[in-house]
Amino acid sequence: MTRLFNDPAAFADELREGFIDANGDLVRGVTGGVVRSTVSRPGSSAVVIGGGSGHYPAFAGLVGPGLASGAAMGNLFASPSAHQVESVGRAADHGGGVLLTCGNYAGDVLNFTAAAEAMRADGIDVRTLWVTDDISSAPASERSKRRGIAGGLVVYKVAGALAEEGAALADVVAAASHANDRTRTLGVAFSGCTFPGASEPLFTVPEGRMAVGMGIHGEPGISETDVPTADGLARMLVEALLGELPDDVPEARGQRALVILNGLGTVKYEEMFVVYRSVARLLAEAGVEVAFSEVGEFCTSFDMAGLSLTITWLDEGLERLWAAPAVTPSFRTGSLEVEPLSDEELAQADEAATAIPPASAESRDAAATVLASLRAAKDVIDANADELGRMDAVAGDGDHGIGMQRGVHAAVDAAEDAVARGAGAGTTLGMAADAWSDRAGGTSGVLWGLLLRTLAQTVGDEERPDTTTVVSGVAAAEQRLRETGGASVGDKTMVDAIVPFAGVLDQRQGDGLAVAWAAAADAATEAAAATADLVPHLGRSRAHGEKSLGTADPGAHSFALIVTAVAAVLEEGN
Amino acid sequence: MTRLFNDPAAFADELREGFIDANGDLVRGVTGGVVRSTVSRPGSSAVVIGGGSGHYPAFAGLVGPGLASGAAMGNLFASPSAHQVESVGRAADHGGGVLLTCGNYAGDVLNFTAAAEAMRADGIDVRTLWVTDDISSAPASERSKRRGIAGGLVVYKVAGALAEEGAALADVVAAASHANDRTRTLGVAFSGCTFPGASEPLFTVPEGRMAVGMGIHGEPGISETDVPTADGLARMLVEALLGELPDDVPEARGQRALVILNGLGTVKYEEMFVVYRSVARLLAEAGVEVAFSEVGEFCTSFDMAGLSLTITWLDEGLERLWAAPAVTPSFRTGSLEVEPLSDEELAQADEAATAIPPASAESRDAAATVLASLRAAKDVIDANADELGRMDAVAGDGDHGIGMQRGVHAAVDAAEDAVARGAGAGTTLGMAADAWSDRAGGTSGVLWGLLLRTLAQTVGDEERPDTTTVVSGVAAAEQRLRETGGASVGDKTMVDAIVPFAGVLDQRQGDGLAVAWAAAADAATEAAAATADLVPHLGRSRAHGEKSLGTADPGAHSFALIVTAVAAVLEEGN
Repeated sequence: MTRLFNDPAAFADELREGFIDANGDLVRGVTGGVVRSTVSRPGSSAVVIGGGSGHYPAFAGLVGPGLASGAAMGNLFASPSAHQVESVGRAADHGGGVLLTCGNYAGDVLNFTAAAEAMRADGIDVRTLWVTDDISSAPASERSKRRGIAGGLVVYKVAGALAEEGAALADVVAAASHANDRTRTLGVAFSGCTFPGASEPLFTVPEGRMAVGMGIHGEPGISETDVPTADGLARMLVEALLGELPDDVPEARGQRALVILNGLGTVKYEEMFVVYRSVARLLAEAGVEVAFSEVGEFCTSFDMAGLSLTITWLDEGLERLWAAPAVTPSFRTGSLEVEPLSDEELAQADEAATAIPPASAESRDAAATVLASLRAAKDVIDANADELGRMDAVAGDGDHGIGMQRGVHAAVDAAEDAVARGAGAGTTLGMAADAWSDRAGGTSGVLWGLLLRTLAQTVGDEERPDTTTVVSGVAAAEQRLRETGGASVGDKTMVDAIVPFAGVLDQRQGDGLAVAWAAAADAATEAAAATADLVPHLGRSRAHGEKSLGTADPGAHSFALIVTAVAAVLEEGN
Repeated sequence: MTRLFNDPAAFADELREGFIDANGDLVRGVTGGVVRSTVSRPGSSAVVIGGGSGHYPAFAGLVGPGLASGAAMGNLFASPSAHQVESVGRAADHGGGVLLTCGNYAGDVLNFTAAAEAMRADGIDVRTLWVTDDISSAPASERSKRRGIAGGLVVYKVAGALAEEGAALADVVAAASHANDRTRTLGVAFSGCTFPGASEPLFTVPEGRMAVGMGIHGEPGISETDVPTADGLARMLVEALLGELPDDVPEARGQRALVILNGLGTVKYEEMFVVYRSVARLLAEAGVEVAFSEVGEFCTSFDMAGLSLTITWLDEGLERLWAAPAVTPSFRTGSLEVEPLSDEELAQADEAATAIPPASAESRDAAATVLASLRAAKDVIDANADELGRMDAVAGDGDHGIGMQRGVHAAVDAAEDAVARGAGAGTTLGMAADAWSDRAGGTSGVLWGLLLRTLAQTVGDEERPDTTTVVSGVAAAEQRLRETGGASVGDKTMVDAIVPFAGVLDQRQGDGLAVAWAAAADAATEAAAATADLVPHLGRSRAHGEKSLGTADPGAHSFALIVTAVAAVLEEGN
């Protein structure tokens, strides 16, 4: 919904003023809209676009060198008047004539046509062109009846680029018309949009449903379905667009294309990238070469939830004009020299350190114990994940169980891979550490990653790790954890469990690793239980609120669970 | 809410893949994130940014020449692991050392610090810097405890621009740190965001309320208020930021600034421009010189509704580095030579045709009758606006009454202005026509604009308009309307009323203007009422659905009302 406005009746005027305030380096206000505030080539032809407001960056956001010369700005979803279009057209004219172009809507066509007539009456050379890229709005046999949606960007960009080169108006119109013929769009919507001050949306889509082909002002679509997966939506859009190639494009395979995935308002970038991932794969399967891709917001429908996919089937001319430099408030391209890496440099860069370093037979033996310990840790965390979540939910965000599961599962997978490839104990621990912290997220992921990585450094890939090595590794890890987390014993964190664990392990090391470890695990278990009585850690601010009293710390508890499980593995190994 | 995903657990991985697919000209994937796919200067220092996903274009959208060298990408709202940051840092290093920088959040600081230590252990020169621009998250006396939000863009841009010039790492760090010291942000939120697959938002703000200072992950704000007007919000944000100048900026007046109005997700561009309009005015009042302004989405919080205002207090160095060229997937600046118009050219361009052409005394007399007629039209439309709306609501979108009111009020205002400035009848009609069509919107605005403009051309500013002149003006207007609207009698439009009106006016002109006009008005009224029995016009597709049977056409009805009201004016004038 729209929350920020003053007088709703003044909204369109005020957004135009604010837009000009923010972009004075590129545009200046004239009656009915904006024109460039930058120097244009005398005698060059002008490209004037426009339509209702509420579609930003269409249309005013596309005014600047290399793109539009001016934009007429109507009220919300309402065509600018003929007088407004004429005013912008006259201000944009540099003596080379004017192309007035907009989407194919009754009101816009009426007003742009009337403006063209008024200007022609004064001897100005004016041509008009209506964008018709929306394949859902009329059958292919009646393309001239289709609406114009996000594909307008391509038409305006091609026209603007050619005008910038100083081409004659007739050539600009021909190129724009060709771009329109080669451009197809299909959109979907999940919700309507709400105007400033309105209590109801302008139109609605039932919850969980998707309107296919719905227009950018809520014009009815051609069908309605349940909301598909991102992959399912990508397939639907790609199949529809591949199903209607332009007459002069015999087949998609081998054809170069410009692809635009356009957000209509409240479908956000992250969702669009997930959809685009599938679009790219499907086009590659179909043999289409994507020469340019744009994922973002180019023609919105205020705060409507929805998106559209546009394909322009390129030829050499269109490719050159799309790539040409443009600088506008919302769209900039092709202006800084960008040098891609060579294949050789890429290969070199990709040769990451994925090789397994050589290891002694003793260390490879010990790696098997590391793996068994991690598997035991996985089992005990799986068995206690719900309880850990409940403990965390009392005071935190309740994701400790899930995070630990993600981390320990990834660590076991990585350790299995390492052992299968002949890694020693140190490398196995190190790969498990990276996998754990990569996948777990949250503070527990950081701390377990640090703990295992510190152990890995002490253990190495040469010697069989003896009791002394393990004890000093645990001591180093304990110290590292305290330094990194900034917490002390009594702060109600994992530190409360690892400190007594490391202490007892050190004291009892004369009894051999298995016995010492078991005693240390008992100490950790006792200490973890005792955290229930402590005042919470009041160090660094936490995003989701401070912990409260009365529950044991889940981080200390899961540490105790794991070292106890590992004690059983070491006992068995004896 | 988030609608488009596949497996929610794979969302962050898939968005990263789609992002790389869409932006292969600028970025390539490495473990844990992306680095530039373009050539960097050997030996130059690298700027690596990062954080959780869900904030696009932060952080991956800011990687490219002139800005970041790479970005570590964590899971949704979760820090990347130390291993991931390290992997991106190593891939981004060109031999000149690396600045690892991110927002000041516990998880990010932990992982970026650990990555820096791991890289330093291999002899790489690594520095860290935490962005702390959010003034709501700690008092000014504890700036180092503040969170980093949208102001990070300034810090990363300044660092990236200096690194691009080949500066030493220490200088890059110093400039970035200075940019952080000079940058302040305050944000507000109106709603929470919803993660893929989640049934509930991650956090909520009560309907109609605004959380002031709420963080980009839902961290609690400092207060909650009712949602203010756009102007009220602008004032609150500007006052808060002007209330805390950096130590080395003695006063705001005369100080040059960079201003960023950042949308957090579902507050859209149009709303932001309305807010920015006020921000610009308030800063001007305070004597701040806005050197650069950006209105858009730079650091989002998934689909959260909210925005933030950032001010960076510039000096020569910061100004140069902000303006330097950058090309990234989401942010491009300063790369194409843009030549502003000179003051002289601007003045020339602004000298619009606002002058009132000379008029005869007779025509100025007639202009008074035009004004009286328009006032009568205004009164009758005001009195019937609700009924016109109801007639339109049966079949259309119900805005005919409102549109006619807007148009006729604007026409009266313009005519009053024209008459006061000595305009003749033709100029008065023409200015009224432009005002009507500019303000009314919709088809009725187009048609009434055309009608009055055609009359204006026939009437002119010289002769007193006699009966013949008015009759031929109405006939020309009638023809123009039929041509433009593409409608014929019987199509259930305004044409159904104007055709009999013009016909009777022509037939009865021998009886004098007042009598003929009254008879013609009666014919129009009869014809308008008869439209209730007609089949609707099935011409060009309408955005909001076709009209249905059973009600008189509101356009024909309002025409009849107006000409009847004007008949009374002409009668009085006799």
